[in-house]
Amino acid sequence: MTELRPHMPVDEQLAILKRGVADLVSEDDLRQKLQRSLDTGQPLRVKLGADPTRPDLHLGHAVILRKMRQFQDLGHKVIMLIGDFTATIGDPTGKSKTRPPLTIEEARANAQSYLEQCRLILRSEPEVLEIRSNGEWLEQLGYKDIVALTAKYTVARILERDDFSKRLAAGTPISMHELLYPLTQGYDSVALEADVELGGTDQLFNNLVGRALQRDYGQEPQVVMTLPLLVGLDGTEKMSKSLDNYVGLSDEPHAIFAGLMKVPDPLLANYFTLLTDLPQERITELLAGHPVEAHRQLARAVLAWLTPDADPDAAEERFRSVAKGGVPDDLPEVTVEVSELNDEGRVSMARLIVLAGLEPSNGAARKLMQNRGLKVAGEAYTDPQGWVAQAELQSPEGLILQKGKDKFKRLKMV
Amino acid sequence: MTELRPHMPVDEQLAILKRGVADLVSEDDLRQKLQRSLDTGQPLRVKLGADPTRPDLHLGHAVILRKMRQFQDLGHKVIMLIGDFTATIGDPTGKSKTRPPLTIEEARANAQSYLEQCRLILRSEPEVLEIRSNGEWLEQLGYKDIVALTAKYTVARILERDDFSKRLAAGTPISMHELLYPLTQGYDSVALEADVELGGTDQLFNNLVGRALQRDYGQEPQVVMTLPLLVGLDGTEKMSKSLDNYVGLSDEPHAIFAGLMKVPDPLLANYFTLLTDLPQERITELLAGHPVEAHRQLARAVLAWLTPDADPDAAEERFRSVAKGGVPDDLPEVTVEVSELNDEGRVSMARLIVLAGLEPSNGAARKLMQNRGLKVAGEAYTDPQGWVAQAELQSPEGLILQKGKDKFKRLKMV
Repeated sequence: MTELRPHMPVDEQLAILKRGVADLVSEDDLRQKLQRSLDTGQPLRVKLGADPTRPDLHLGHAVILRKMRQFQDLGHKVIMLIGDFTATIGDPTGKSKTRPPLTIEEARANAQSYLEQCRLILRSEPEVLEIRSNGEWLEQLGYKDIVALTAKYTVARILERDDFSKRLAAGTPISMHELLYPLTQGYDSVALEADVELGGTDQLFNNLVGRALQRDYGQEPQVVMTLPLLVGLDGTEKMSKSLDNYVGLSDEPHAIFAGLMKVPDPLLANYFTLLTDLPQERITELLAGHPVEAHRQLARAVLAWLTPDADPDAAEERFRSVAKGGVPDDLPEVTVEVSELNDEGRVSMARLIVLAGLEPSNGAARKLMQNRGLKVAGEAYTDPQGWVAQAELQSPEGLILQKGKDKFKRLKMV
Repeated sequence: MTELRPHMPVDEQLAILKRGVADLVSEDDLRQKLQRSLDTGQPLRVKLGADPTRPDLHLGHAVILRKMRQFQDLGHKVIMLIGDFTATIGDPTGKSKTRPPLTIEEARANAQSYLEQCRLILRSEPEVLEIRSNGEWLEQLGYKDIVALTAKYTVARILERDDFSKRLAAGTPISMHELLYPLTQGYDSVALEADVELGGTDQLFNNLVGRALQRDYGQEPQVVMTLPLLVGLDGTEKMSKSLDNYVGLSDEPHAIFAGLMKVPDPLLANYFTLLTDLPQERITELLAGHPVEAHRQLARAVLAWLTPDADPDAAEERFRSVAKGGVPDDLPEVTVEVSELNDEGRVSMARLIVLAGLEPSNGAARKLMQNRGLKVAGEAYTDPQGWVAQAELQSPEGLILQKGKDKFKRLKMV
């Protein structure tokens, strides 16, 4: 059990914390803060902000969450800041698709799911985990406070942000409220008295605003630490759910194994650095060896921290069996109600795919079949208008649906 | 007595209202609004915003106030909006000298004095005068409302404002809150449901923001009407107290007369248009005649509305007597306390100038004497270190101080 207060010499802490980091502003400041926290026994306050808009986490998110976990293991306090208040505002112009306004219930449900997934990586002890909402202070701000806040930052500095300057040059409209958000995010650091803020490299500018504002509010400026955006399994784009180039944090162990076996070779070094604790010498050794073995070790190293209770051998075994076209034994089972049957005692295959949770709608299910993405009992099933009889669902085996290489569901009717 | 509701045909109203106007956005909108107000009997709501920071009004302010008065005489309702709430915020960066933050007491006192002076020109009947404070709605705005407000305007449009674009190009810092103020000012028009907003030509941009925001908030956009900035008695700069090229609204009639006699000839036409109701033919006639007569008629026309209870002949008479070096009879008298005397029974001339209210400080008083700006009983007094004995102050005449041509004070000790 790790000690839940700062205990390790500063140089050793720094060596751990700097691994894989893209920007660190500044190392000297971090060193000083670590030293003081060691002297006083006061942990650092390490902030990570999140919009509760995308509840499905994957290994791309894990890169930053693992860094947060390192801070926790070194005895520092991680602050998960949920932007639920700003999420309910969204983009009032309605132009931005990434910021649809949420109801407070939606925002809270998303936040709940987000935090549950974060707990797959983070420690939960209150000494090292604090969960906050930006509504706590933003709801209190009046016109006067916002004038005081905006007075501390110049237009030129805000417009220096890469996407703003590009849009302004291109004549693409920037709404005034978009300039307000980086300031608000910076003000969050003031309200939290953060010592360190983490983020992806795309958050560098916003987090530096927080650093500047803390100084203006008479606080010691936070250290800004960014981590690279993980490139997805396609080898080109940032890992994201919408591009389907991801490995989900809640996926089953064999599926995680399968995903990591697909990492393009040129990305292997990066994945090892960002997603494992293997020492550099061991990584160099693995990269010099056979790529399949390197992938295996990557997958096992990730499973070791992501699903510590699962048997890695079993996960690997199952991955292999699925890869060979075999059907695993312990399939997730879905019960089909008798009420789903039509007058002729049948149910459409499209409906069954939806019931199995493999696609969200009948339309998507038919598309899956047209695109030869469905197997039934190991055989391709390509009739989008197909029907299944009650008897098949009541057989001892049930009906085994397979989407892609590694997603299986067994459907049964009792 | 003018009727206090819209009553005059639209074309006649327009002819009066358009006199001297610099910008009118747009005439068609104004015509429509006037027509509807005539049809419904509902007066237009005509807004003028004022920062309660400069309590001394002069003829430069009168240009706009007279236009407001014209609206009142046509039966429309004038709304004097006092920016007392924003005045208490001021410029939080402390960089702008024109926006020092005021206490709420200072702001209220300034507003009180400002409104008293406005009443020299405006009618006071509640049917045609409404006095409001922007704190009424700005104090209610929270973070969410401000995001919604700023979302309605793009950065590019705000930066189009002349001084912003120049400063941005020159690299002169613009604080973010400065972008907020035009939006706030525009929001005032939304809150007031203004039909027309008046201002100097320097307010064109800000008032157009109000027009745009009203549209965004689902209101009929206000008409924006600007009036030229009156050039002062120096013939070059905008009339202002700090440049001492002004005629104060509360000056005595003979001083107003004297000031208007000094208007540079090339500005006469402008002063006639902006500060009198004389018809154009009469103005043309006067400008073709002797300049002294034109100045006389200008002065008498201004006194006719500015000090309707004073006898213009007496004002002119007194102006002439002062101009010839004479001392008027009914001098304002100031009592000097015995405690002002030093051990030798004397008081410095500098101190007396301050007590008389002719200069704000001893230093300024000494400068006045050095610059030969002071006369005592008609003679130049140029010794900045001079002293005055008790006996002089206790003579029946007292001590008569004269600053410039027309400012007199009689000092006495009882």
